[in-house]
Amino acid sequence: MPTNNNPKPAVVLLSGGLDSATSAAIAQAEGYQVHALSIDYGQRHRFELESATRVAQALEVAEHKILTIDLAALGGSALTADIEVPQGRSDEQIADGIPITYVPARNTVMLSLALGYAEVLGSADIFIGVNAVDYSGYPDCRSEFIAAFEQVANLATKAGVEGKLKFQIHTPLIDLTKAEIIRRGTELGVDYALTHTCYSPNEQGVSCGKCDACQLRLKGFADAALVDPIEYQ
Amino acid sequence: MPTNNNPKPAVVLLSGGLDSATSAAIAQAEGYQVHALSIDYGQRHRFELESATRVAQALEVAEHKILTIDLAALGGSALTADIEVPQGRSDEQIADGIPITYVPARNTVMLSLALGYAEVLGSADIFIGVNAVDYSGYPDCRSEFIAAFEQVANLATKAGVEGKLKFQIHTPLIDLTKAEIIRRGTELGVDYALTHTCYSPNEQGVSCGKCDACQLRLKGFADAALVDPIEYQ
Repeated sequence: MPTNNNPKPAVVLLSGGLDSATSAAIAQAEGYQVHALSIDYGQRHRFELESATRVAQALEVAEHKILTIDLAALGGSALTADIEVPQGRSDEQIADGIPITYVPARNTVMLSLALGYAEVLGSADIFIGVNAVDYSGYPDCRSEFIAAFEQVANLATKAGVEGKLKFQIHTPLIDLTKAEIIRRGTELGVDYALTHTCYSPNEQGVSCGKCDACQLRLKGFADAALVDPIEYQ
Repeated sequence: MPTNNNPKPAVVLLSGGLDSATSAAIAQAEGYQVHALSIDYGQRHRFELESATRVAQALEVAEHKILTIDLAALGGSALTADIEVPQGRSDEQIADGIPITYVPARNTVMLSLALGYAEVLGSADIFIGVNAVDYSGYPDCRSEFIAAFEQVANLATKAGVEGKLKFQIHTPLIDLTKAEIIRRGTELGVDYALTHTCYSPNEQGVSCGKCDACQLRLKGFADAALVDPIEYQ
């Protein structure tokens, strides 16, 4: 729900996870009219996109687009290809290096699509929910990457080159811990029951509680002294 | 056909047009094993992708992938949306500004996908057939854009960050005129009869000869003192 009568449009990448839901709520709190963009990149399960749709509805966004692109055809990741997702790894293991759940060029692809959408809308503002905890080795969640992409955005587009738009990639979560993200979202009224985080849910979409993503989420709620409203196996 | 026994893999963006066919032939001549990537971004006609397949076969590339992404869903271009393609424009009109056939963020999206594919292959080399004539106002065909994207590529990827690959975006046509491109491709044995250029073909796929793309192509063959082998209406 927009907080003023003449809000500026912003494109918000919405995965259905906890972080992007918070990022969307922050964009609204900053007065933007949210045009949510979800990318179906061949995820092994559909629960993430269903969550994105529920989150978009709950936030009453101006528009929610879902674009399909078969990144799985390129291979190379446990999230899209037929590789087993690691479970029960220790914090040290999680912190050590880039996980096999890395999807090649994922954020570059997503930001490119968000850029095309933003240009069509006449919007200069793109929100992406990357953060230092989620980073856990993903190179395309770092501020150096975001800054370089912002450069590309302003050189790639008609609106950027003509000086009509100065594109900005907003990363409101980049320096927050998971607990801080959850506290901020809770203040803004985000319903985390609608979000999906698990890399390895069962057939009913119930989270495993053991994969890296579940562990980070559960630790975040614990550190924030809040209860995670979703069900676990 | 690879020119040596242990060629390095390269990803070559292949649209089915004259430029990308030449770019692929140049990559082979430089000793790369070509992995061609075509993007079906919701083009209004399918002839371009059919040409890409024919060109890939004629060049005997190692692999040809076609990824589908519905950029038309984002709106904003005569090539993907329901806007009339301009015909019979003068050279001055063509040279003046960015045409309405501009597809938002197209080359950014294509290079992002090529980057993901390259990383999976363990390839550091991406070829794209942008050039100064084709530029005709497209911001994402300029060398500033290409250099900025190269930065992104090396910051976005596991292989780039770990120093295993130093990504390079090759633009062998960027400083060539259309006539020079056609001469170079002809030397390398490219069969331009297989390529498709027209923005506005009839139902049989026969080129109009009048749209900006046809005019540039015809002028290129004339300037090169060669005969364009394709049929026109």
